[in-house]
Amino acid sequence: MDVNEKYFKNISNRERAIFEGAITMGALFHQFIGTPINIKSAESLEKSIKTAMELQPCINKVEIEINRDILKKIENEYEYISLTGEMLDVKVESNFSDKSAVIRLKYISELKYPLMYVEDVD
Amino acid sequence: MDVNEKYFKNISNRERAIFEGAITMGALFHQFIGTPINIKSAESLEKSIKTAMELQPCINKVEIEINRDILKKIENEYEYISLTGEMLDVKVESNFSDKSAVIRLKYISELKYPLMYVEDVD
Amino acid sequence: MDVNEKYFKNISNRERAIFEGAITMGALFHQFIGTPINIKSAESLEKSIKTAMELQPCINKVEIEINRDILKKIENEYEYISLTGEMLDVKVESNFSDKSAVIRLKYISELKYPLMYVEDVD
Amino acid sequence: MDVNEKYFKNISNRERAIFEGAITMGALFHQFIGTPINIKSAESLEKSIKTAMELQPCINKVEIEINRDILKKIENEYEYISLTGEMLDVKVESNFSDKSAVIRLKYISELKYPLMYVEDVD
Repeated sequence: MDVNEKYFKNISNRERAIFEGAITMGALFHQFIGTPINIKSAESLEKSIKTAMELQPCINKVEIEINRDILKKIENEYEYISLTGEMLDVKVESNFSDKSAVIRLKYISELKYPLMYVEDVD
Repeated sequence: MDVNEKYFKNISNRERAIFEGAITMGALFHQFIGTPINIKSAESLEKSIKTAMELQPCINKVEIEINRDILKKIENEYEYISLTGEMLDVKVESNFSDKSAVIRLKYISELKYPLMYVEDVD
Repeated sequence: MDVNEKYFKNISNRERAIFEGAITMGALFHQFIGTPINIKSAESLEKSIKTAMELQPCINKVEIEINRDILKKIENEYEYISLTGEMLDVKVESNFSDKSAVIRLKYISELKYPLMYVEDVD
Repeated sequence: MDVNEKYFKNISNRERAIFEGAITMGALFHQFIGTPINIKSAESLEKSIKTAMELQPCINKVEIEINRDILKKIENEYEYISLTGEMLDVKVESNFSDKSAVIRLKYISELKYPLMYVEDVD
């Protein structure tokens, strides 16, 4: 079966790039939010999130940065917290045929919300 | 701040509908996969997945069906299993301004894969 | 196979009740943290968390309360947030043979931490 | 505040070790089930699961092995699958004061169930 022919003929290449990048961003957020984290474990978690999410269809590259300033301020006696959307800055680069998109997740203080948007698309 | 003006001017209304629906589908899958489930709890889980995911931006309606045939065949002595993508059939209806999209998640036996695609868009 | 005979002979009935309750509490937290929630969806989510987690081995009853005061204060324009440990107050009642335990999850402000402990056991 | 004095006086050191190990095992399972995985990403995911879960209270060490035989047999065209309990073999070593426990997660074919049990305790 030609999946693209059967299931994706109704959208353009550009729309497909946006579609696949958006799925991966939603997936990333809801898979990993809640993971125990501190300043020492952050790099390992960043790597495995990147590696896991780059497996998804049409994903070229995932860049992720977990906010170290928040992790430095952990004050509870257990010395770790649960990962939240506030700590995440992520770029998902997706590609389909001749089109690509960069989906961004960034916490916008003014909105008090971890916004997902299309940072770049062609 | 006008979020649409600031962050979404580079995509069309149709692309926005696809984008938001896709985020919600990826989110839904990765939030709830792994939840303990059996034939008796399925309806309650369907309702809360629907209610939770309809909160997301630009989502009109979520329809979800967890496969009862799979749940009827549970044979372990604990009488429940973990929710998997194979059991899910989901439609996410998203809308932005004058455009709307239906994103579908369906397990495709031929692909051995829970495929997400754009079922309808205008 | 007699699972209890084969895998659980090395612990007492009381320890088994504690063990199973603790598993379910850890599971509950990490399955549902991150779920979109607001004041209108809270009851539906509470019900399905209860129903799902009561399926686990040796679990009699799950009581869960999602903090409405926090939900009333949501100020972002999307009118929902992600579920966090700070919002949860949960009791998991487990039982094995003649022994039972109540495991509690409660956010302790003084600790800045959602603490899990054995509230009652006999 | 002395947390142990205030919240854990009603259980023995041995029970505390079992309790904390069990929480971490339940947490691990439900945090990471559903993560995209294939043979190339397995090691990175193992490392970050280990690193994350070793942050939890009273956890000495986490050993985790994701079943490579299952990953080698992936046949769908996307060349990855979602992590399931069937693929996991995990040991969580917990310790409190003079007592320690090893909690094990292992898929038991005969039970068709990923069983969690106390492998060792003193």
